[in-house]
Order: sequence, then structure tokens, then C-alpha cells
Amino acid sequence: MDSSSLRARQKERRRARIYGVAIELFKQGGFQATTATDIAKASNVSRGTFFNYYPYKEAVLLDYGSEVMDRLREMAEMKLASGQAPLGVLYDVWDQLADENTRERDLFPPLAYEVMNPNPERARTAYQALPLSKVVELVLRPMHQNGQLRTDLSLQRISNLIADTYLMVALRWSAYGTERPLKEEMRLALNLLLEGAVKR
Amino acid sequence: MDSSSLRARQKERRRARIYGVAIELFKQGGFQATTATDIAKASNVSRGTFFNYYPYKEAVLLDYGSEVMDRLREMAEMKLASGQAPLGVLYDVWDQLADENTRERDLFPPLAYEVMNPNPERARTAYQALPLSKVVELVLRPMHQNGQLRTDLSLQRISNLIADTYLMVALRWSAYGTERPLKEEMRLALNLLLEGAVKR
Repeated sequence: MDSSSLRARQKERRRARIYGVAIELFKQGGFQATTATDIAKASNVSRGTFFNYYPYKEAVLLDYGSEVMDRLREMAEMKLASGQAPLGVLYDVWDQLADENTRERDLFPPLAYEVMNPNPERARTAYQALPLSKVVELVLRPMHQNGQLRTDLSLQRISNLIADTYLMVALRWSAYGTERPLKEEMRLALNLLLEGAVKR
Repeated sequence: MDSSSLRARQKERRRARIYGVAIELFKQGGFQATTATDIAKASNVSRGTFFNYYPYKEAVLLDYGSEVMDRLREMAEMKLASGQAPLGVLYDVWDQLADENTRERDLFPPLAYEVMNPNPERARTAYQALPLSKVVELVLRPMHQNGQLRTDLSLQRISNLIADTYLMVALRWSAYGTERPLKEEMRLALNLLLEGAVKR
């Protein structure tokens, strides 16, 4: 192995260590209360090194959210390939996301805020790291192709609206709580988006 | 007039002056670039006095948003009273909101961020100052009473989802722009929420 790929592996191992330590600290002490200095100290690197890997604390969370999205996409692809109906797959993806979000309820609000960061570059970075609307699009594509979806809105736009609604529902739920579990809140909102509010 | 109501009137006049000056500065120089010091100076009060009236800069915007909501509610009430069909009234409210948002496109993102402020007390204050979901609820109530809406979701929940969707659509539009006018984006999202994505 040449020295440049060795360096790349060392770098990746260090990144993985910092990431693991940071997520552990966030879960134990809360995201807001954990500082970059805390993470650097606990992973035996300098603050400067931490910022080389993650230019801001929220960037660690983006790695976490990105992993969650990867898992959701793989699950969706597997279920679609095994012949499950797209709407069922979408509700399964939603349930899975609700479970993850409920289990790690302190990590999700800062992730959601990052997507809506007033700094457009940070918002775009977050949006690209968390391609939920792409997962929705993947699941709904067969229905779109079979003419089962409305056609005055593009598949991308429908998928964006569904993903955005998840964001708002989850944020409200995390911030205020409700009498219902998040899973139920999310199913109700998805029902509304798919079927509409007005009886026909 | 006794002295306490005189003081109250003076106080209200000063608040109105600070408000008018602040909104003017926001429109001219942008919300982010305008500081509390700028507003205090231009309205001939101390910084301390400014903060007595508005504990943070965004609180001025809440007054502005609150006025917009008042106008929307009055318009909705008038149209309903004159016998216009609720769905038509809702689309009219949406168009009016899109016009206002488009005209003052720099003021709306900080308002939206305030509703989602990580500080729960600030978020709650903003939410109460901007009762869009109450306006939606008011408009949809006759349809709810006539059994024209789905009943597995409460009227309040449906109204919240519609108001939340406005927030996300307007925020995306303000931050990134799209090829379409905001009015059209908002109508498309409203269509989806009212009628659903899936053909029946």
C-alpha cells in the first residue's frame, strides 16, 4: 500500500473515531451542551483538528442523518424489489423514520434546523446530506409511471412536499410533544398528503 | 384624561414610532444588516428603550406578521359572510398571503425562522403572534360542519398542516427561488393538501 492511501485510511479512521465520540457525547449530554472542545478532548485531537474534519458541530449530525437516510433508501429498494406495493413501502419508511426519530429525539431538532439554516450554503449542505425527498421519489416512481399520481405536480415536487411535511411534523413533535406518538402523527400527515383533506 | 392613560398613550405612540422606523430600515437595508442600535438611533430613543419595547429584533417583525394575519382574517370573515364558498375563500387568502410575502420577500424568512426558533419560548411567542392556522380553521369550519372534510383528522390538525406547509413552501421559495411565482407554488401545495396526491 502506498503512503497516500495509508494516509487516507488513517484520516478516515480518525474521522470515524471523532464521529463516534461526538455522537456518544451528544446522546449523553445533549447536543447544545456538548462543545467542540468536549468532542476534541474526548477523542484525543486538538480543536483545530476537530474543525478540519467537521467545520461546525452540526456537520457531525449530518453524517448521522446521512446514515439514517442510507438505511431508509436500502430498505425501500429491498421492499420494492421484493414486490411490495409502493404505498405500503412508503408507510414502512415513515414508521422506520418515526422510530429512529423517537429513539434519538434530541438529535433530530438540530438536524431539522440545519436544513432550514438562514445561511444558504449550510442549508444546502444539510439538504444534500439528508435526501429524504429522494427516498420518497424512489418509492413513488412506480406509481407515477403507472399514472396513479396526480400529474399537475411533478413527482419531485410531490416528494418534496411529503419530505417537508415530515420535517415540520417531527419538529413540532420534538419541540412541544403531543398526546400521540410521533409515528401516529406522521401517518396522519402522510394520509392527508396522499389522500387529501376534502372528501370526494 | 388621567395621567396613567396619558402615559399609556405616550407609550403606545412611541412603540408605533419605533415599529414604523424599524420596518422602514428593514425594508431599506435588510433585516440582518439592521441593528437594534440603528433602530434606536433612527427613532431617537436609547438602545435600552428599544429593548423595553421589543426584547429582540425579531419581535418587531412579529408585530408586522401579526398585522398581516389580522388583515387576512378580516378578509376571510368578510368573504365568508358574503356567502363565498370556503374553498374559494381559502385560495383567496393564500393568494393574498403570497402577494404580501412576494412584495416583502426579505421580511418573511426571519419571521418563519422565528416560528421554528430552537428557544421554545420564542417559538411559542411567534406561533401565537402569527395565527395562520386559526385563519385556515375559520375558513374550513363550515366545510367541517357540513361533513365535507375527512373526519379521522381534527379540523385543527388539518389547519395546522396547511399552515405549516405554507411556511415550508414560502421558506424554500425565499431561500432558493424557483422558476414559478410563489403564488403558484402555494396554490399547488394547497391543491395537494386538499385533494391528495393519489388518484381515486
